Amino acid sequence: MNIDHIAIVVHDVEKAASKYKNILQVDKIQFETVDTEGVKLAILKLNNGRIELMQPLKLDSPIQKFLDKNGEGLHHIALQTNNLDNTIKNMKNNCAIKFLGDVRTGSENTKIIFAHPKSLHGVLLELCSYRD
Amino acid sequence: MNIDHIAIVVHDVEKAASKYKNILQVDKIQFETVDTEGVKLAILKLNNGRIELMQPLKLDSPIQKFLDKNGEGLHHIALQTNNLDNTIKNMKNNCAIKFLGDVRTGSENTKIIFAHPKSLHGVLLELCSYRD
Repeated sequence: MNIDHIAIVVHDVEKAASKYKNILQVDKIQFETVDTEGVKLAILKLNNGRIELMQPLKLDSPIQKFLDKNGEGLHHIALQTNNLDNTIKNMKNNCAIKFLGDVRTGSENTKIIFAHPKSLHGVLLELCSYRD
Repeated sequence: MNIDHIAIVVHDVEKAASKYKNILQVDKIQFETVDTEGVKLAILKLNNGRIELMQPLKLDSPIQKFLDKNGEGLHHIALQTNNLDNTIKNMKNNCAIKFLGDVRTGSENTKIIFAHPKSLHGVLLELCSYRD
């Protein structure tokens, strides 16, 4: 598996993206709205992975609740796998990992699923897979 | 810059490493104690970066305090730069980033420094550079 991205929750994604663009010295920012998750994203591409800044768009979304409780900061990490179904099966059967909901579409049209933080020492882990 | 590692604070690094080894399907775990930070690390190498699990070894260390306050979970991210001095200079001069202490030695004999989370929308960011 590869590290795909690190996701950071922020109040204002355009303001944060402008700052992170300078810090990371990347040329461009890609903005995307993911309706199923209720977020607006700014994607900053590094050589070997992405930083995703996320602003919640819905007051009742889990990401807004996270922001209200914890403030801005690290939200989740995403690992990329070439075979999402097998990875899920392995994690369920051999590692007793519990998943939050089913496989759905994430940013950049990836197939994604989230594992429960209680299964992973407090880490919210996204698994993602690029479509052919 | 590249993503170098993602650091996760845990109560028991051996127990957590055993679980993460199965989840990430990596062959081996490298353990290391970093006295300056007061932590025992388990390093799990993926294709394009590392997952570092950290257990505090000192009751008065910042990482023990983080664990007491927040519980287990994501602690910081680390970006790798080929020129640490220039990166620090750019971040200080052009991005108003504040740093925590000076450059010191981190895991795997890297040169490291931490930027303050208040400068980075709540994210504790480590910059690291490998020695020649």
